[in-house]
Amino acid sequence: MTGAVDRALVVLSGGQDSTTCLYWAVDRFGRDNVSSITFDYGQRHRIELECARKVAAAAGVANVCLPIDTFAALGGDALTDASIAVSDETGEQSELPATFVPGRNLIFLTFAAAYAYRHDTRHLVTGVAQTDYSGYPDCREATIVALQEAISLGMDREFIMHTPLMHRSKKETVELAVRLGALDAMALTHTCYNGRRPPCGKCQACRLRARGFAEAGVRDPLLDTR
Amino acid sequence: MTGAVDRALVVLSGGQDSTTCLYWAVDRFGRDNVSSITFDYGQRHRIELECARKVAAAAGVANVCLPIDTFAALGGDALTDASIAVSDETGEQSELPATFVPGRNLIFLTFAAAYAYRHDTRHLVTGVAQTDYSGYPDCREATIVALQEAISLGMDREFIMHTPLMHRSKKETVELAVRLGALDAMALTHTCYNGRRPPCGKCQACRLRARGFAEAGVRDPLLDTR
Repeated sequence: MTGAVDRALVVLSGGQDSTTCLYWAVDRFGRDNVSSITFDYGQRHRIELECARKVAAAAGVANVCLPIDTFAALGGDALTDASIAVSDETGEQSELPATFVPGRNLIFLTFAAAYAYRHDTRHLVTGVAQTDYSGYPDCREATIVALQEAISLGMDREFIMHTPLMHRSKKETVELAVRLGALDAMALTHTCYNGRRPPCGKCQACRLRARGFAEAGVRDPLLDTR
Repeated sequence: MTGAVDRALVVLSGGQDSTTCLYWAVDRFGRDNVSSITFDYGQRHRIELECARKVAAAAGVANVCLPIDTFAALGGDALTDASIAVSDETGEQSELPATFVPGRNLIFLTFAAAYAYRHDTRHLVTGVAQTDYSGYPDCREATIVALQEAISLGMDREFIMHTPLMHRSKKETVELAVRLGALDAMALTHTCYNGRRPPCGKCQACRLRARGFAEAGVRDPLLDTR
């Protein structure tokens, strides 16, 4: 690295978790040293991209959106393929959920690193968590640790991946957002797997979010937006 | 894995090395268990995609081409950005070559794994090598080992990455191609960084290729095509 300043790049999806991470990064690295990256990978819910832009603006941080047309070409998952239904079951699942896009976070973080490489940035921040989640294997700590190694070796530069939410429950994530002054920005975020605004309240993502706010004893400002 | 058969997916660029690897995979896994994947990442030399298709057809193996529009959006390298000159210097280089696309092989292998995931395939074959090369860090064995771990964890499936050329010189790669019956297919491949056919003979890629054939005492069939 040429600069003495530590810069951070946040992978920002426009959801609750990555928004919390953006505010975490601003708190940790300083607003001027943080930027955010969003991926347009053909998600059915285009509103996510708009949410990411608004969240970044609210936080006073730059946001770049990079296209990835490959996932749609791969096909076969419920987040990019409108012909596959998103399950609203919350019961035990023996297989990966229909919303699993193989390698999605691996790809996001690798492209984020490629962007960071060109912008003198070595800290990458992602909102993945192994707690309270639906068994996405690319959200596990072991995956992120291995990927940090692969990317650092593959680009011959030491990247440091930060996962502030890795071991936090949804309740704890809401509490963190409150502490960081990120609560207002939650009104700008998007969570619902069914793309509804206000949220459908029935899909697994909505239920997890609602439970987190309820357990933290905080009113979700998203519910008061129209 | 549901099938008892071991299937392999070869990352096929249409160049000399990946073509040799395709024939290696056919020899190792059997033609019926091998397929190939090519990435259209906006490379300046569109001829590579055509070469990959022809090589796969010659080997009797399926070839799928997936788009990746992200590298072009990232910009800044000589392989996708026509405004950056490819150096034809072969001297010592203290920095990465202008043709370095950060994370390119990481991305290729991760998308290949995502495709393989959907097609009941766990063997991935790539033509990267740390010998005789220009210092691309994503071609090193340590990178591939770390990436295999990250991808296997991230997709919760045990992938095995094969790098038959990792420790082979260009001379040894030519000798391997001859042993595998891949020499004729070399006439269909593309190597030149300057996109010439017949090859320019002056860029680093052309020089490496020519030296390998010369040292192996084999006539490069590409030189006899027009």
